Amino acid sequence: MANLDSIFHCLSDTTRRAVIAQLVNGPAPVSELAASHEMALPSFLKHINVLEKSGWIETNKSGRIRTCRLRPETVRAAEGWLEQQRRHWEARLDRLDAFLANMNEAEDKE
Amino acid sequence: MANLDSIFHCLSDTTRRAVIAQLVNGPAPVSELAASHEMALPSFLKHINVLEKSGWIETNKSGRIRTCRLRPETVRAAEGWLEQQRRHWEARLDRLDAFLANMNEAEDKE
Repeated sequence: MANLDSIFHCLSDTTRRAVIAQLVNGPAPVSELAASHEMALPSFLKHINVLEKSGWIETNKSGRIRTCRLRPETVRAAEGWLEQQRRHWEARLDRLDAFLANMNEAEDKE
Repeated sequence: MANLDSIFHCLSDTTRRAVIAQLVNGPAPVSELAASHEMALPSFLKHINVLEKSGWIETNKSGRIRTCRLRPETVRAAEGWLEQQRRHWEARLDRLDAFLANMNEAEDKE
């Protein structure tokens, strides 16, 4: 499992995010993925390598065809970190709401 | 609102993720945030600038104190993109399950 640095770095590029969005629909050969990007193949292959090294995809070669497959545990790792931040944030706002409600109640009683 | 390239790039660094996790607990002055990182202040300030430019935080200066505040809409934008990928992925797996269940049913009837 790659670390969060490289997992998030991988998402900082439009082409790589587009490849992930393509692979969400199922495994696909590199040639098919490349066809929908206006980019020289060597440049595209660099993105594929970054995706593989960071743990977003795994690739298998069978004959001349290299197939890419998304690793869902990486989607969950990235989403998990963000979800954790949002939950802590919301929990804090809930505590703030409760505090303000208590204050209003105390004022009403006065 | 910053774009997803810079939003995700910002998360590719341990210090910047730690600052976000600190600010989830509420706004804090730069000096307080810096105190928990073993790093020269100029280096730390560079991270604060990256966080601000990418839309993760906003800062306000009052006298000599610069206070940082998380922008929750950025947490939601990043999480939203990842959630979308996971949902498409899960919908595809559900369709695959349904397809396999239908196949099994058809076989049982034979």
